[in-house]
Amino acid sequence: MLLPNHGANPQLLANSLKISLDENSIDFSVNVNPYPARRRMKDMWFSLYEDILQYPDPSAEPFVQFVSEKEGLNADQILAGNGAAELIFLIAQAYRGTNVLIAAPAFSEYEDACKVNDCNVDFYVTRKEKGWQPDLQELNEKLHGKKLCFLCNPNNPTGTALDLNNLEAIVALCECHHVTLVVDEAFVHFLEKPVSAVHLMKKYSNLILLRSLTKMFHLPGLRLGYAMSSKEQIGKLEKFQPPWSVNGPAQKLGILCLEQEEFADEIAMKTAVERERIFPILDKLGFETSPSTVNFYLLRESGEEKIQLALIKYLMIKGMIVRHTFNFRGLDGHYIRLAIRTPEENDRLLAALEGWKAR
Amino acid sequence: MLLPNHGANPQLLANSLKISLDENSIDFSVNVNPYPARRRMKDMWFSLYEDILQYPDPSAEPFVQFVSEKEGLNADQILAGNGAAELIFLIAQAYRGTNVLIAAPAFSEYEDACKVNDCNVDFYVTRKEKGWQPDLQELNEKLHGKKLCFLCNPNNPTGTALDLNNLEAIVALCECHHVTLVVDEAFVHFLEKPVSAVHLMKKYSNLILLRSLTKMFHLPGLRLGYAMSSKEQIGKLEKFQPPWSVNGPAQKLGILCLEQEEFADEIAMKTAVERERIFPILDKLGFETSPSTVNFYLLRESGEEKIQLALIKYLMIKGMIVRHTFNFRGLDGHYIRLAIRTPEENDRLLAALEGWKAR
Repeated sequence: MLLPNHGANPQLLANSLKISLDENSIDFSVNVNPYPARRRMKDMWFSLYEDILQYPDPSAEPFVQFVSEKEGLNADQILAGNGAAELIFLIAQAYRGTNVLIAAPAFSEYEDACKVNDCNVDFYVTRKEKGWQPDLQELNEKLHGKKLCFLCNPNNPTGTALDLNNLEAIVALCECHHVTLVVDEAFVHFLEKPVSAVHLMKKYSNLILLRSLTKMFHLPGLRLGYAMSSKEQIGKLEKFQPPWSVNGPAQKLGILCLEQEEFADEIAMKTAVERERIFPILDKLGFETSPSTVNFYLLRESGEEKIQLALIKYLMIKGMIVRHTFNFRGLDGHYIRLAIRTPEENDRLLAALEGWKAR
Repeated sequence: MLLPNHGANPQLLANSLKISLDENSIDFSVNVNPYPARRRMKDMWFSLYEDILQYPDPSAEPFVQFVSEKEGLNADQILAGNGAAELIFLIAQAYRGTNVLIAAPAFSEYEDACKVNDCNVDFYVTRKEKGWQPDLQELNEKLHGKKLCFLCNPNNPTGTALDLNNLEAIVALCECHHVTLVVDEAFVHFLEKPVSAVHLMKKYSNLILLRSLTKMFHLPGLRLGYAMSSKEQIGKLEKFQPPWSVNGPAQKLGILCLEQEEFADEIAMKTAVERERIFPILDKLGFETSPSTVNFYLLRESGEEKIQLALIKYLMIKGMIVRHTFNFRGLDGHYIRLAIRTPEENDRLLAALEGWKAR
């Protein structure tokens, strides 16, 4: 890898490129919702001071109860976590030392969590030529002898999503192989019509679904996610979790966020409108994009199978922070990942990319 | 165990005793500082809203840097955690499957964390007759074949503390046995003259110290603690920790708290004054207390080696929530643990205990 894994810390990336970061830079590297949080969240924040003064519920019970009612599951099928990252590490602990398959390119935390827990990690890498969709026959072969499989849907970093039939086909295939399938649905609410595997939990017992409140509700600093699965699976994960793992303010604010269903719908719609506006412009400018259905996408110069280091540097100097893909298996730096932000911000990006082509 | 481990959730305890909890009840079961937090913390809270809108530093670097300067250590000797509870679980993971000794009576999380990580757990139980102090010869025998030892100093739940000579003797004994010693110093700043093992880290390489900001700075709902050890040990723990484990507001507020050294000194002094005021009164009323040096103590009726269930129920009905000791090995419910609170609150407790004796 030519550049550091910057983990939402763009200064690290700037340092390694020897660029001084403009303080007015726009962050296209983080894939959280770019619209400012609602007044209600900020108003609530002030009253949450009281919640730091007492121990939080050790298992985030009121939040768990709320989620279970919203999703139509029992409370013992939900585990709240200190961000989805904690839940990924708990899953890897529960499957310590087993054979794991990761559908790539993917968020590097699946691999990190599995490796520290002595899992044997194998990858199934989707390809641009197939629209970044898994091929069932290839996946079938890769699943032999595995115990656990990670699949991010909609996928980070490609932004592509499986339709319901393909999703169920993969769940069924995993069940046939006695593989527990983790579907990371961190971006599911950015889909105009969310396709979640949650209803498949009634038919299949081998599913663990992950959700994060970070992305849609724009609160990455607070840390809150949850897992949904069978009572037995949740019990296995829970025993590795320290008590009081979800802080008090996150428990309260989490409920407020999930109550705002129409907010998520509105953001998904705004994102779709912007995506459909800018993709044809990018195409005309000579850039290829992944067929994203959410709030971020992959980009490279059309037809150019090469490392995008010069383009990254150029955009960073122009005040646009981008996500490199050196640590995404199957991409190896050949693309950059960009967030879909507000129209004004996207216009600045388009102007910069036009400048790149005209240089 | 006759009563549930209530994990700072007194409602659970009340339910199992079939008592309805008065909303004006005073919580003597939680051993955090009872004095309201300072104005500066509350003022800062409002501005911390901005910190939930962006990813926190993945390893809490600014906080870690601050702690390292305060403690005179290198930054790579510090690990920040989502409360000390997370750090305890990370230690148990790093020592997975080994033989562990726990100095008891102690906080039940050491045992819980070790058991889920397949450790063989043995206990060294201190006794009232020896002032709850470890006997070096007995400890020496117990340390044979162990890899890890947990010691809470000042001890929870007895409130007793080791002097510097005894503390060093135990560190040296552990080093001789090639045992890593975890000293949990969650309550060290409640001592009038804090006795920490931190300066022993220069002489001994087998130490891990734990600190919590929960107790003194009264922010159990926010989750923040840190471990101090050698660079090598910290590296071993860190690899099991999910990224972004310490939320953004905790990272900022943590620094503000640790800047307020005089605050901790003032609270320790107030606590000592109250302790010295109420202990002789309790003695006169016919109650025995552990020789505590911090903000909580064990209590039972003088000379009565029996389960304190009736007393717990009586105090709960009178609006005083107490901590039972059924899940503290070596106490088995024969004591109750009480916090030292404000003079007015302690007076209410004294009056209730007088009522108990006069009934």
